[in-house]
Amino acid sequence: MSSTNQFQSIEHILKNSLNDEDYAKVRQVLYGNATPEIEIPTLIQDTAESYDIELKAYSIPALAEQTRPVRAVRIGLFQHQTPLPTNSKISEMHNAMQKLAVKAIHLASNLGVNVFCFQEAWNMPFAFCTREKFPWCEYAEEAEHGPTTKFLQQLAKENNIVIISPILERDGTHSDTIWNTAVVIDNHGNYLGKHRKNHIPRVGDFNESTYYFEGNTGHPVFQTDYGKIAINICYGRHHPLNWLGFGLNGAEIVFNPSATVGDLSEPLWGIEARNAAIANGYFTCAINRVGTEIFENEFTSGNGKPAHKDFGHFYGSSYVTAPNGSRTPGLSRTRNGLLVTEVDLNMCRQAKDTWGFQMTQRLDMYAKLLSEASDHHFVPQIIKK
Amino acid sequence: MSSTNQFQSIEHILKNSLNDEDYAKVRQVLYGNATPEIEIPTLIQDTAESYDIELKAYSIPALAEQTRPVRAVRIGLFQHQTPLPTNSKISEMHNAMQKLAVKAIHLASNLGVNVFCFQEAWNMPFAFCTREKFPWCEYAEEAEHGPTTKFLQQLAKENNIVIISPILERDGTHSDTIWNTAVVIDNHGNYLGKHRKNHIPRVGDFNESTYYFEGNTGHPVFQTDYGKIAINICYGRHHPLNWLGFGLNGAEIVFNPSATVGDLSEPLWGIEARNAAIANGYFTCAINRVGTEIFENEFTSGNGKPAHKDFGHFYGSSYVTAPNGSRTPGLSRTRNGLLVTEVDLNMCRQAKDTWGFQMTQRLDMYAKLLSEASDHHFVPQIIKK
Repeated sequence: MSSTNQFQSIEHILKNSLNDEDYAKVRQVLYGNATPEIEIPTLIQDTAESYDIELKAYSIPALAEQTRPVRAVRIGLFQHQTPLPTNSKISEMHNAMQKLAVKAIHLASNLGVNVFCFQEAWNMPFAFCTREKFPWCEYAEEAEHGPTTKFLQQLAKENNIVIISPILERDGTHSDTIWNTAVVIDNHGNYLGKHRKNHIPRVGDFNESTYYFEGNTGHPVFQTDYGKIAINICYGRHHPLNWLGFGLNGAEIVFNPSATVGDLSEPLWGIEARNAAIANGYFTCAINRVGTEIFENEFTSGNGKPAHKDFGHFYGSSYVTAPNGSRTPGLSRTRNGLLVTEVDLNMCRQAKDTWGFQMTQRLDMYAKLLSEASDHHFVPQIIKK
Repeated sequence: MSSTNQFQSIEHILKNSLNDEDYAKVRQVLYGNATPEIEIPTLIQDTAESYDIELKAYSIPALAEQTRPVRAVRIGLFQHQTPLPTNSKISEMHNAMQKLAVKAIHLASNLGVNVFCFQEAWNMPFAFCTREKFPWCEYAEEAEHGPTTKFLQQLAKENNIVIISPILERDGTHSDTIWNTAVVIDNHGNYLGKHRKNHIPRVGDFNESTYYFEGNTGHPVFQTDYGKIAINICYGRHHPLNWLGFGLNGAEIVFNPSATVGDLSEPLWGIEARNAAIANGYFTCAINRVGTEIFENEFTSGNGKPAHKDFGHFYGSSYVTAPNGSRTPGLSRTRNGLLVTEVDLNMCRQAKDTWGFQMTQRLDMYAKLLSEASDHHFVPQIIKK
């Protein structure tokens, strides 16, 4: 299906088809506690429309505590289409991407966003389906000193926003290797560090292991003025252990910048990031690309179908989940969009105190099990007559 | 809310409120691939109605393979209310439970069920909210030689059905300790073994650590004539590592017999067992009790509310998820019910081949991380300016 015949969202269908009473029941079972809309000033909403960016804002309140003040943080998730044809010159593509980024961060800034995250490999087409090395490898940049980081450092400082920038990284210091990396820039414009995608897919059109290898940066958590944040890039969302790693290191918000398409993936989209928030007592932010990208040369997908030039529709649907399992509605499946969510980071510890998952998790038992199971002589515990 | 003013299910609302086209979209995004209904002979359906048991049957087909025949298995999940008042004599309660079990297994047998699972602590009220030791501890039975196991061995043999029987276990050989245990009886009527609940809640009315401790049986997988099965009991569903343990040992179907209530829990119900199926490449079967149980003596719930005699409505909603993330509709939130699902176990390996989560999971990295993190001197990986 191309972008043009895609439906907007299931939330849109439910809201328009169910009566209020039924909608409340369905929403509670499917999405948990209500996430009230934050009123957006008309001027900002009009500006968003003039940019053709869907703008939504929700709040997820926590309990008031006696010994800690509210730790309110506004998170901004930006999902977007590639603004130019995929065969545009790299310089032109970068210019167009940067213009879009300025608009998105302008909106975010006006809505008081503190931490902003782009989608995976945000400043390029998601071209890994082609398995062509050129020109796509030329999109790779140094994490700390590349042009995209420099560009965003300025924006971060001007707007007092932490920015997470997932890019294709070139590591010139280490044999010119390429990585799928998220760069973290703090709200003072400083380069804070980077994280490399830990798990790389070998699935259909996601032939990403052609380009880069499993990350070697562990599970870093970045301490910012607005909480402890981490990034689980795309396919890493399928790995509960990856989510756990960020939890063990104390993350309060984990971003999942992604690029995913199709009927195989979409029913999983609402499950995995949400499960991670529940299991680990942190907020998760799932961000997906939108639109359909068409490439110059045809390619096949390892599924017996004829060669073609696109690999389907990125279905957007970015959303935020709280540690108690409540989630916001998703952004649309079809449009560029900015999702602003005000959270109270105090909910992380509150959820842990309520459910006790960390107290009851028996890490030592699993350390032993995983150690045994990672030996290829491992004999599974099987009981039979 | 008492049982009487509970709504039936969100699936019921969606099916009755959405037009066919919208329903198909919503169902695909929320539940994945279709799970066609299996036609139930009128005589069996009528019998179920005469027992006041909701009867539903679905199939989850897999791809045809060249080198393996279809491995079709019919799974039966039974959710039920406590048939007598909670203050009934233990012998009377056991009699009533056994009569109900005979009916459920009779129906299951007539629909060709191969593996049947009861809910958690199925043959007693879920009385742990009371924190009273007596008479509830008297419900505990020896796993291998207790009366409930003996009773079910006969039924298993007569009906050629593997039966999983989650009970309160008394271990007379080891200091009369009590455990929350699932007993596995094979289809020849043999006692195959047991598994003890690995993670014990300390949450509100789920004061279960008053009665039993964390299990010491590891993550056993039971090899039966109908596949390799395992049991993740209730609160263990919140722990991705627990699900992983059964996966590492080769499970093809993991049952999650549960007893859970309330607004805190219900939005998580559709997420956790489903996420586990996706992450581990096996079928998961979530089973919840139904109804409201009223106790003789009032108790409090650690939530500032006045003493009361029940701890809410068990919302049923039992369902099955396939390794590709597709799931069946849930049973009702209010009625006794038997959910029959025909699965093809070949889908487990197919899902692993498709997604590659096991190939890409980097167990050795996590063995090291968990080993470090389970030391109380562990220093998290935090990056700051």
